[in-house]
Amino acid sequence: MAVTVLGLGEMGSALAAAFLAGGQRTAVWNRTPGRAEALVARGAVGSSSVEDAVAGADLVVVNVKGNEAARAVLASAGSLAGRVVVNLTDGTSSEARGLSAWVAARGARYVHGQIMTIAPAIGHPDSVVFYGGDEAAFNDHRGVLLLLGGRATFLGDDAGVPALFGMAMNGTMWGTLNGFLHAAALLSSQGVEVKRFVEAASASLTGLLGYLPSLAEEVDRGEHAVPFGALKHHLPAVDDLVRESRERGIDAGLPSYTSELVRAAVEAGHGDDSYSRLVERFRSAS
Amino acid sequence: MAVTVLGLGEMGSALAAAFLAGGQRTAVWNRTPGRAEALVARGAVGSSSVEDAVAGADLVVVNVKGNEAARAVLASAGSLAGRVVVNLTDGTSSEARGLSAWVAARGARYVHGQIMTIAPAIGHPDSVVFYGGDEAAFNDHRGVLLLLGGRATFLGDDAGVPALFGMAMNGTMWGTLNGFLHAAALLSSQGVEVKRFVEAASASLTGLLGYLPSLAEEVDRGEHAVPFGALKHHLPAVDDLVRESRERGIDAGLPSYTSELVRAAVEAGHGDDSYSRLVERFRSAS
Repeated sequence: MAVTVLGLGEMGSALAAAFLAGGQRTAVWNRTPGRAEALVARGAVGSSSVEDAVAGADLVVVNVKGNEAARAVLASAGSLAGRVVVNLTDGTSSEARGLSAWVAARGARYVHGQIMTIAPAIGHPDSVVFYGGDEAAFNDHRGVLLLLGGRATFLGDDAGVPALFGMAMNGTMWGTLNGFLHAAALLSSQGVEVKRFVEAASASLTGLLGYLPSLAEEVDRGEHAVPFGALKHHLPAVDDLVRESRERGIDAGLPSYTSELVRAAVEAGHGDDSYSRLVERFRSAS
Repeated sequence: MAVTVLGLGEMGSALAAAFLAGGQRTAVWNRTPGRAEALVARGAVGSSSVEDAVAGADLVVVNVKGNEAARAVLASAGSLAGRVVVNLTDGTSSEARGLSAWVAARGARYVHGQIMTIAPAIGHPDSVVFYGGDEAAFNDHRGVLLLLGGRATFLGDDAGVPALFGMAMNGTMWGTLNGFLHAAALLSSQGVEVKRFVEAASASLTGLLGYLPSLAEEVDRGEHAVPFGALKHHLPAVDDLVRESRERGIDAGLPSYTSELVRAAVEAGHGDDSYSRLVERFRSAS
């Protein structure tokens, strides 16, 4: 099995290193030279053109900045026919679907991958990579792809879904981090160590994650009635956070945003519903 | 030991029921009558005035709507001297500190409590209640307070800290839920079950919580340099989510908010820093 890695940024270099560590014959290429040297020293075959790098490859892995660049790199590869292209480049779901069709039209099989970890965790058995697209191609190369992350999860034949799951995870992450860092600003403004809060709130934070499956089911079923913890009970607590922030000279924009979301839903008659009712707010473009 | 519960809403009723279940002599009062009936049937002593309810109590537990109401209720209690007041009413940290001083001036000891669960979980060994204020008073009544939630955590003599921790947890929660429900809107717009995402992303979601202690330390130390996962790497990913949202006719306001936060920090020269650098943005009132 011969693998080629196109793109040797922080992440691409980690991918190539993981293939090498797993004993794979690995060719590497990068637009700007010099990035390959450390990998060549570890046994990689450096190439000065994409066409050379891809010439002997069964599996072509692409990790560059954006899918427009990924398409341009693949267009300069000469024939892709008979190969498997695994595109690990970040982007939107429609970009992934577009590249999937473009690669298929060139006689190659396409798998899109969404890396869910930072570069130093590539190769770890617990690291997650979501895949979608050509299932037979994924299965043919599953052993090699497991070298990148032990939790290689195939999500189906829609090449856009891995990117969607990546964005869904990122969006949840940014929401969490923004809320947490606003809280950190509030705590530190009163001389309270944030670390103390994280330790004391550990069980509550874990409980928060345990809440997501039931919210997901409510959204999937379109049913939002709940016996406890309804939206109307969130409102005074959100307004406490707005008041506390203002009293302390801390940004009140983030809690005010939540307050407006919740208040609008309560005023629209959804006060007895679960917080999941707010999905409807996000369904309409603002 | 005689306990009095003032305020019998959904939560207050659960508190009184937990004291009764633990074999405590429990007097109850509510502004509007009728709420006490079920509790009286289970052995509580109903009172038509706050003064009667408090007369024989060692421990006075208050759970009403807002600290202004809590103060008014306590003001009508006659003498509080020698008693311990545990105020479990939601509000800001300054309100809690104000009530603490007000209660102390009346010869009683004050403990503020922040309930971190919904009413049906009151009495559960895993339920968390944060306490702060008079430590000796807390310790004198710890056994009784453990009846409300097995994780009764004393945070120190500042009666404002439990409310702060509650708001910090809530703010983190709302951030998570908003980000998650935006993602849910995006997934369901493309026919993807949200439940599938939660299952597939389970390890990543758990990893997200594991990230908070290091962010907390960065904020506490005021040092934000990181070797990997810096702010500049978040920017293209946030912009992917903005583009995807717009393409699908989904609200782009929430990811755009994050994009502006990250972009401003990168443009201010913090691109190589951790996401924790954004705490500074929240420190300034907007």
